[in-house]
Amino acid sequence: MNRARHRGQLIVLSGPSGVGKSTVIAELLSVRKDIYFSVSFTTRQPRVGEADGVNYNFVTRDAFEAMIAAGELLEYTEYVNHYYGTSLKVIEEKLDAGIDVLLDIEVQGAATVRTKCPEAVLIFIIPPSFEELSRRLHGRNTDGEEVIAGRLEKAKVECREIPNYDYLVVNDKVSWAAEEIIAILTAEGCRTKNRMNLVEGV
Amino acid sequence: MNRARHRGQLIVLSGPSGVGKSTVIAELLSVRKDIYFSVSFTTRQPRVGEADGVNYNFVTRDAFEAMIAAGELLEYTEYVNHYYGTSLKVIEEKLDAGIDVLLDIEVQGAATVRTKCPEAVLIFIIPPSFEELSRRLHGRNTDGEEVIAGRLEKAKVECREIPNYDYLVVNDKVSWAAEEIIAILTAEGCRTKNRMNLVEGV
Repeated sequence: MNRARHRGQLIVLSGPSGVGKSTVIAELLSVRKDIYFSVSFTTRQPRVGEADGVNYNFVTRDAFEAMIAAGELLEYTEYVNHYYGTSLKVIEEKLDAGIDVLLDIEVQGAATVRTKCPEAVLIFIIPPSFEELSRRLHGRNTDGEEVIAGRLEKAKVECREIPNYDYLVVNDKVSWAAEEIIAILTAEGCRTKNRMNLVEGV
Repeated sequence: MNRARHRGQLIVLSGPSGVGKSTVIAELLSVRKDIYFSVSFTTRQPRVGEADGVNYNFVTRDAFEAMIAAGELLEYTEYVNHYYGTSLKVIEEKLDAGIDVLLDIEVQGAATVRTKCPEAVLIFIIPPSFEELSRRLHGRNTDGEEVIAGRLEKAKVECREIPNYDYLVVNDKVSWAAEEIIAILTAEGCRTKNRMNLVEGV
């Protein structure tokens, strides 16, 4: 059910580490194949299994700083001596072509997007409970107790930013969370301000 | 997929005569059986096939004016010497019980609801085109040319109120229109402001 619209919708997804965001995004993109998932740029080295243009666009520090200087980035951050950022140029091209664009970024980046693109739809994914988040982080078997404790602490800090988000989705079941996000995007497409072009034809 | 929420959602549906609103509502209610469809009060006589409590709550003029005096009506209008109105009392009871309430009212009543209940979700249903609306009105075989011309003129006037509505749904296909409304209601249920109770548990 696609209805003509002039410009694509910018969608921002945030959520604490371990909430299962990547799985929800994969489910969402398997249903809404028309959505463009924006791949971030970074200056860090690829990890084993990461592919350029899939997990990140891996670029040199010089190239990244050139993008900053040219104003090509929607948002960026420096973390442990490496840059991470989102290309405004690529996103604008997609939106102008009427394609919906999905960004997976953390709360600081989302706040920047809110300021620069007020029409963006901001969705925050939470776990059913902190106990469940702790269980999921332990289940990964990748981090020690100290790292997990740090992630849980960070999750609590991130959750303070929830009031800045338009929608709140609980990832108790991946398919439910994805369904809710799909409904949110359908609804946003039905917003009067996004459809006034249809009224002219009436 | 029902998520706990404190209060029901008030939903207003408007649309020109002949757009197929009743069919869309029937389809919607067959899927979302939990929604309470608010039946209006009127002082006019029941037409053939109309049942009290189903199409309208048929009341006397005295009873209606008593409701006005008691402030029991969310909105009301007088049309060709008959009152038509919506009981605030019934709606509040349902909303307080966490039940979503659907109102089928015209643009003036919707404007009143917007003022009195700013949290209401207003949805306007349009036909794919005025030509199609004209075809549907002719297809009913109930009205003469003059009445149809009047309805089309009224439809154009009503469409000027569209910017006051949150969402715009095109009834080109009943099942699509119903699906979009269902998505809108799911999305509204995911609004951060309606779900902050879930965050306290995180």
